Amino acid sequence: MWKLPVIIVNFKLYPTGAGKRGLNLAKILDEVSRDRDVSIAIAVNSLNFSQIKSVVDIPVLLQHVDAVDYGAHTGRINIDLAKEMGADGILINHSERRLTIADIDYLIQRARELDIISLVCTNNARVSGAIAFLEPDMIAMEPPELIGGDISVSTARPEAIVETIEAVKSVKSVPVLVGAGIKNGQDVKKAIELGAKGVLVASGIVKAKDPKKAINDLVDGMM
Amino acid sequence: MWKLPVIIVNFKLYPTGAGKRGLNLAKILDEVSRDRDVSIAIAVNSLNFSQIKSVVDIPVLLQHVDAVDYGAHTGRINIDLAKEMGADGILINHSERRLTIADIDYLIQRARELDIISLVCTNNARVSGAIAFLEPDMIAMEPPELIGGDISVSTARPEAIVETIEAVKSVKSVPVLVGAGIKNGQDVKKAIELGAKGVLVASGIVKAKDPKKAINDLVDGMM
Amino acid sequence: MWKLPVIIVNFKLYPTGAGKRGLNLAKILDEVSRDRDVSIAIAVNSLNFSQIKSVVDIPVLLQHVDAVDYGAHTGRINIDLAKEMGADGILINHSERRLTIADIDYLIQRARELDIISLVCTNNARVSGAIAFLEPDMIAMEPPELIGGDISVSTARPEAIVETIEAVKSVKSVPVLVGAGIKNGQDVKKAIELGAKGVLVASGIVKAKDPKKAINDLVDGMM
Amino acid sequence: MWKLPVIIVNFKLYPTGAGKRGLNLAKILDEVSRDRDVSIAIAVNSLNFSQIKSVVDIPVLLQHVDAVDYGAHTGRINIDLAKEMGADGILINHSERRLTIADIDYLIQRARELDIISLVCTNNARVSGAIAFLEPDMIAMEPPELIGGDISVSTARPEAIVETIEAVKSVKSVPVLVGAGIKNGQDVKKAIELGAKGVLVASGIVKAKDPKKAINDLVDGMM
Repeated sequence: MWKLPVIIVNFKLYPTGAGKRGLNLAKILDEVSRDRDVSIAIAVNSLNFSQIKSVVDIPVLLQHVDAVDYGAHTGRINIDLAKEMGADGILINHSERRLTIADIDYLIQRARELDIISLVCTNNARVSGAIAFLEPDMIAMEPPELIGGDISVSTARPEAIVETIEAVKSVKSVPVLVGAGIKNGQDVKKAIELGAKGVLVASGIVKAKDPKKAINDLVDGMM
Repeated sequence: MWKLPVIIVNFKLYPTGAGKRGLNLAKILDEVSRDRDVSIAIAVNSLNFSQIKSVVDIPVLLQHVDAVDYGAHTGRINIDLAKEMGADGILINHSERRLTIADIDYLIQRARELDIISLVCTNNARVSGAIAFLEPDMIAMEPPELIGGDISVSTARPEAIVETIEAVKSVKSVPVLVGAGIKNGQDVKKAIELGAKGVLVASGIVKAKDPKKAINDLVDGMM
Repeated sequence: MWKLPVIIVNFKLYPTGAGKRGLNLAKILDEVSRDRDVSIAIAVNSLNFSQIKSVVDIPVLLQHVDAVDYGAHTGRINIDLAKEMGADGILINHSERRLTIADIDYLIQRARELDIISLVCTNNARVSGAIAFLEPDMIAMEPPELIGGDISVSTARPEAIVETIEAVKSVKSVPVLVGAGIKNGQDVKKAIELGAKGVLVASGIVKAKDPKKAINDLVDGMM
Repeated sequence: MWKLPVIIVNFKLYPTGAGKRGLNLAKILDEVSRDRDVSIAIAVNSLNFSQIKSVVDIPVLLQHVDAVDYGAHTGRINIDLAKEMGADGILINHSERRLTIADIDYLIQRARELDIISLVCTNNARVSGAIAFLEPDMIAMEPPELIGGDISVSTARPEAIVETIEAVKSVKSVPVLVGAGIKNGQDVKKAIELGAKGVLVASGIVKAKDPKKAINDLVDGMM
């Protein structure tokens, strides 16, 4: 189910990744994963999580949980509840939702205890090496300046991919994904050739005119 | 359905207010609202919202939404999505999730456009008067030092209730609820005698050994 | 010294508003204030405050203080210390340093107790009316979309100035300044004709090639 | 001057660590450092920094700087300005001022470029090992539950000191200080015996009735 390499699609709060349209997108990705026998996972918002989780077989991650125990925390959700509700994993420290390192550490350790996937986003090779010491299940390195842009990390910063993988390997054995500007199969292919175990993608799929075509193109690059 | 006076139960992230137990609590409150023909509403976390909303008739509010439009906002939910998912209202600026005044203003105005209830929490009479100018549907004043404690605002700070109602009335006609330490029917009765249009309660119900008995006691005070 | 109308220059953290260059800029503004007998004040960063305060006669505000009492708050400064160090006032809730309304309220009340000027930044007429209820010494309304831009609030949104002054007046008698995109005397003149009691300006002076010429131009508009 | 082992006194925003009293305390610590030929440094708030720096010879750190370049950042200070104003170093990520790991990384790298000491606070051995990968000049581990308390880390958690030093050593060679509850020479002595290169202390000195006696006691433990 959760095998590498993997394509993780972050729905963000794009209108096409939320509500009914988010549900439809999840079904499309689920279908492509099954049809092509390729590992795809999705990261969705908390309000739509349960509904989406109930209709797909692919792993569903939450985009964020707060680093708190149960208690007097109005407007917060935590990892224990994520687990109870069936979350397969959590995205931690996305560039649009940065956390303190104490909170990142808490979430990684608690994820391990609860047997739920932890995927930590990072911004460069150094920070990736640092996070590796905390032993999350996966690290996704995304150069901030390329996020949401038209040029992919594979094209613009191949050396950053290599450096990240080396930095992580020098500390602990943690699979490295890459993201930022990933748009087509060529970007995926190159990332994997450089040693990445998958990609984190958002607008390239979620904002695509034809998401099915777009994801199939990415899958081509992974074959 | 949404008539005043009202008892609003904030489930926070108490273990008894989340997951299966939160669902059970919602059903109990729904039943009491129906049986006794009294206005009760609940504020729940985002991950449990949809499931709870689907099994109760009482109004269900979200404890928090972010003041953002649809877009590249990983780990955020907004009021437009809350509306699409069926939220009856939103809690804004709870003491455990304070917002900037620019964000409070945005949420109140957008709630009005989307025809969804806005309830803004405040910490004293002055701030309540200020918020009244933004014309939310309701204001809930909770003295921070009494939140989660054993002495209710009705007992400890009755003058704060009166001052808040006067401050708000001097600006705009907005119903005022009060909260903090509300534990029994006597607390509710006194708050309403002082002019409050309801109460915001959390631990008094959610952490009660017998929540059904506890809510019935509160309802007694409202009759 | 602190008479209306006033031009308040926010040094931000522009390189020309910090360190030695910030000190020089402060001296220029001090000199122009004296020479032309016009009310000018400045808002500076905490690290440069004491040095600047010791060499000028014009009022010096801090750009931000935290809403905390003395205590275990590493990396924070408070208003009581600002007073002890000689601050004439504090900027509160600037668009680049937004605060919760509970904190804004705390700072305004404490400023009054300590006899130090409180100037609260707001983003529109509604929020300005709300803040007026808290009775700060002044309100500075700046439409966020115009801050740092080339078109001034006076030109682009004159109706926003009028609405703000009316909203504030309907609540309490608090002088209203305006800001965003203020570049020349014409902008100042128009703002004052519309009822503003002064302007809040930053890049127009701090990033000007010839700040002395730029401030003199603004002063022309106030005469 | 900046030799190891070192006692770093964090003035926080204690009333006895700010304004005139903070200045006096700095002079006392400076004198003790000279008299006893022992390495003492202090971490002070931004508003008092310049004045304190101008009267002492011991290293003066800022308790916090923001991870921003010069620009439109009202109410912020940065490390470049800290350097220009003569700061010897910066405290990064104190438990009362936590930062994202991207910001911690930025500050460490910029500190190295500007030749200014970077001291990163951490909460456990794992996080210390992670931070070591970023190669700050020093790491200060403080178990959060002991900060400000009456039992020192040396007494309550000696194994945490050992684990931290080992975790850090396994990654990079970075000196480790420890803190939390340090009150007397015995606490210092034990920390150093366990391998720490110094201590980070706050209330034990800053809130002491007789700070001179208190610091001399700590120094005894370091001899």
